[in-house]
Amino acid sequence: MTTESPVVLALDLLGTFAFALNGALTALRVARLDIVGVVTLGMITALGGGIIRDVLLDVPPATFNDWRYLAVAAGGGLIAFVSGRHLERLNTPITVLDAAGLSLFAVTGAGKALQLGLGPVQAVLLGALTGVGGGTLRDVMVRQVPSVLSSGLYAIPALIGATATVVLTLLDVHGPATAVGAAVLCFGIRMVGVHYDLDAPMPPRAFDPRSDDDGPR
Amino acid sequence: MTTESPVVLALDLLGTFAFALNGALTALRVARLDIVGVVTLGMITALGGGIIRDVLLDVPPATFNDWRYLAVAAGGGLIAFVSGRHLERLNTPITVLDAAGLSLFAVTGAGKALQLGLGPVQAVLLGALTGVGGGTLRDVMVRQVPSVLSSGLYAIPALIGATATVVLTLLDVHGPATAVGAAVLCFGIRMVGVHYDLDAPMPPRAFDPRSDDDGPR
Amino acid sequence: MTTESPVVLALDLLGTFAFALNGALTALRVARLDIVGVVTLGMITALGGGIIRDVLLDVPPATFNDWRYLAVAAGGGLIAFVSGRHLERLNTPITVLDAAGLSLFAVTGAGKALQLGLGPVQAVLLGALTGVGGGTLRDVMVRQVPSVLSSGLYAIPALIGATATVVLTLLDVHGPATAVGAAVLCFGIRMVGVHYDLDAPMPPRAFDPRSDDDGPR
Repeated sequence: MTTESPVVLALDLLGTFAFALNGALTALRVARLDIVGVVTLGMITALGGGIIRDVLLDVPPATFNDWRYLAVAAGGGLIAFVSGRHLERLNTPITVLDAAGLSLFAVTGAGKALQLGLGPVQAVLLGALTGVGGGTLRDVMVRQVPSVLSSGLYAIPALIGATATVVLTLLDVHGPATAVGAAVLCFGIRMVGVHYDLDAPMPPRAFDPRSDDDGPR
Repeated sequence: MTTESPVVLALDLLGTFAFALNGALTALRVARLDIVGVVTLGMITALGGGIIRDVLLDVPPATFNDWRYLAVAAGGGLIAFVSGRHLERLNTPITVLDAAGLSLFAVTGAGKALQLGLGPVQAVLLGALTGVGGGTLRDVMVRQVPSVLSSGLYAIPALIGATATVVLTLLDVHGPATAVGAAVLCFGIRMVGVHYDLDAPMPPRAFDPRSDDDGPR
Repeated sequence: MTTESPVVLALDLLGTFAFALNGALTALRVARLDIVGVVTLGMITALGGGIIRDVLLDVPPATFNDWRYLAVAAGGGLIAFVSGRHLERLNTPITVLDAAGLSLFAVTGAGKALQLGLGPVQAVLLGALTGVGGGTLRDVMVRQVPSVLSSGLYAIPALIGATATVVLTLLDVHGPATAVGAAVLCFGIRMVGVHYDLDAPMPPRAFDPRSDDDGPR
């Protein structure tokens, strides 16, 4: 699946690298970590979504079993460890690469679920989960409410990209162009969200949560 | 398993709905969440226990693969999102429904484990885990020590209901009446615990934990 | 795998017991827990690493399916619950036992991964994960940044022990002596780290994380 074509493989490895780099930098910003922590959280961000997807599909985790993904993810984490402070200035390209990773993972995740015979609703959820699962695991491990649950447009573009993949595949319009189109759609919505600082809808007449960012519960 | 009979299916879906509603409301009370967060945490509360059980059984997660459970769980989360503040007044019926869900999940979880050939101890643990696993995942994601580990009678009625299921099944007294009896036992203990505000035993000469409820996050 | 020989079984059960005891005591120190919480967190510390390994290997979790491991893990948790305050004085022997558990789990975890046909890199990672996974799960559940990610030498000896196991096995030098040698190596490095209070390398020009150590951890 992840090795279908050299182009998809290259893009997938690039997305993995971006996720690891961005994930490790995000973790470094909120917790005191040593080298084990930085590299581990980079790898978890990069590979966690695909691993959760494959566990839910009850198949062996594909990226974990492919040393190239492990090496690229570890490399991203190591670079963040060594030169974290300098990379802070590269915030914009890293955000763009991260959005590319999100788009690719959502599309390839939904595609893999369909190939394994899951229903369309499950394929959409698994596609989105492939994109957002790794960052969610990382946030939980550094004691943050996962940002995907609280702010920004991150899960929504992933859900839309996965839905486009599933709909087009069910209409029998599959092939590389379909995947690219769905990924571009996800990427575009994500970047619009970043640029205009959009959030997903909040509850009406907001609750007054007792233990969010500043207080004990 | 989950589709054995229309009555069990209806009860199971009702329990799923109650878990999603209660889970999403609980999450809203302690963290600032957007619509993605509220619906996701409702679904995780409702489906997480069964998914953990099926992962430990090494079988594909049944409720995740059944769109009716996904729809009911998402519906519960959405209702909590839209009308959370009003539902706060319905605290008692929601607690009762949640206890019903706990009872059903503990009994059906233990039953599924036995059917798949697990030993009695494992079946009891998996039954209880089906009941309490989803809420535990939710609590971790909103940065709470899982309430099931710290206060109230929640795991204990689930363990008792699962034990009753296993003992009666091993005595060859199975069938719908057994399941109903075990579920009623669990439900009764849970409601007695709620009514009298009972807690499970605490450690003797309590420790003085450094970072529990009164420290900064 | 875990029942290969009576000696390995006895050592493995002893390691499980040490992990459960140490894990439950650690959890008690940082969170207000009832009996369910203490025993659950002891069991999660003891069995969690092996369960994560087996989920990633896509095989049924071996220790969960063996009532002896469940009983020993629950026993360790119960002893911590009943006599936690007195055990605080036994800090040194418990640390030594915990290091022994870490060493055994890293070596047997890497060995199991190799036996199931995983590659050498995966086997090293799964060995280390078997050793550190349970404590990581526990820390997340009591709202701590996992100590393995932030300080001390814990993952590194596990990685070295697992690497030694994999290298020696690939060189066809396997057998009990190999396993013992690799475990002793891991144990030695861990105890040197404890004795001299060594930490893994921290990021250069440390970040100033916003939400880490100013709270009690």
